Amino acid sequence: MNDRAEHIHKAFDEELRQLDNRLAEMGGLVEAQLAGAVEALRRGNTELAEQIVARDKEIDALDIEIDLFSVRLVALRQPVAADLRTIFAAIRISSDLERIGDMAKNIARRTHAVSRFPPLATTASIASMARVVQTMIKQVLDAWTARDTEAAADVFARDTEVDQHYASLFRELLTYMMEDPRNIGPCTHLLFVAKNLERVGDHTTNIAEQIDYAVLGTRSAERETHDPTNSLVPEAEGG
Amino acid sequence: MNDRAEHIHKAFDEELRQLDNRLAEMGGLVEAQLAGAVEALRRGNTELAEQIVARDKEIDALDIEIDLFSVRLVALRQPVAADLRTIFAAIRISSDLERIGDMAKNIARRTHAVSRFPPLATTASIASMARVVQTMIKQVLDAWTARDTEAAADVFARDTEVDQHYASLFRELLTYMMEDPRNIGPCTHLLFVAKNLERVGDHTTNIAEQIDYAVLGTRSAERETHDPTNSLVPEAEGG
Repeated sequence: MNDRAEHIHKAFDEELRQLDNRLAEMGGLVEAQLAGAVEALRRGNTELAEQIVARDKEIDALDIEIDLFSVRLVALRQPVAADLRTIFAAIRISSDLERIGDMAKNIARRTHAVSRFPPLATTASIASMARVVQTMIKQVLDAWTARDTEAAADVFARDTEVDQHYASLFRELLTYMMEDPRNIGPCTHLLFVAKNLERVGDHTTNIAEQIDYAVLGTRSAERETHDPTNSLVPEAEGG
Repeated sequence: MNDRAEHIHKAFDEELRQLDNRLAEMGGLVEAQLAGAVEALRRGNTELAEQIVARDKEIDALDIEIDLFSVRLVALRQPVAADLRTIFAAIRISSDLERIGDMAKNIARRTHAVSRFPPLATTASIASMARVVQTMIKQVLDAWTARDTEAAADVFARDTEVDQHYASLFRELLTYMMEDPRNIGPCTHLLFVAKNLERVGDHTTNIAEQIDYAVLGTRSAERETHDPTNSLVPEAEGG
């Protein structure tokens, strides 16, 4: 390798590292946002909720920054094979993290509506579902940093757990609504919160897929984003 | 331009046309799926609903095909500037179309649960909301084919209409639930259907953004995916 080629090679490696650093930064922010949103909802802390909503702009800005940086990288360095795949994977991971950020914002936004009602037992179930998806985010970000496809596979397995949590929360919320119409308002909001958490789980599995894509070059069909409650008919009515 | 350069140039133009054709094909399929899903839900036609669910695989396959084709195009032709942006835009549009396909599938999946109840007046409101988002999909796909940024801007304007439909449906459904607990089951499903349609609207505006990006090179901050019902407290309770 001549000096010039070596120089470009080093510069490109450094740029790929920068890309990873930005993704890690974004991932950390998204984790904190989701934790904060669930905390705000549980405690009825509307002030914290507003902070979470305001901070989402930082995540959006990071997404655009990663996106523009990646496109520039492709145009300037004209990478191929694994390097090109890594850049495409980074763009998609950034987009999934941005959407997880949106979910956190949506959850935070419901704090006000939910806080006006006496606390429901459900918020404990929501907190435990949130813990599972938070672990998944952490796991998948570590798997990306290490380019560890086995750790990525674990994330898929855990998503089943999230779906189970969601199905049981859905039933729980429907029961509360039928018991007392005053529960309908807050329970409707909590249904959407549960759905948001379920979608966070789906986004982490999308990220896990990108690890396979970057490392192995495989691109599996989009995994089913199956909502286990789609055809649920509450017993009290469906008979 | 020498013969070889001209040959490559022509081949690349042809490939970009192929990319557009695939996107148009995918767009047509997605439009048909959404129309079918809403039809199935309205008529309680579970057979049609099952067909819609089954056909979603075709959309997923097209998304992956467009994706792989695009990445190959970048690696082989090493495009820059507007050509490179067009390819990145195509990848993102394909991903948004794939998600609209998922929304259609989710709506179709709720047909069974909803069909077990007497029809609610709400399904007419859902059908009229669906008509708005279907028009948006058509508009944005035409705008992409023509690379027409003004037509793309119209899509954003129309999304406000979708948000209004959604907010009014949300209130309507909550009212039904409070009137009669037997409505809670089907109304919960219809709430998610309304939410899915609202998300389809958001995806069409994402596509509109990609037209700006491909044509002008601008990449605006992700538009607010604001759910107008986030902080809604039903009057009957919030008081």
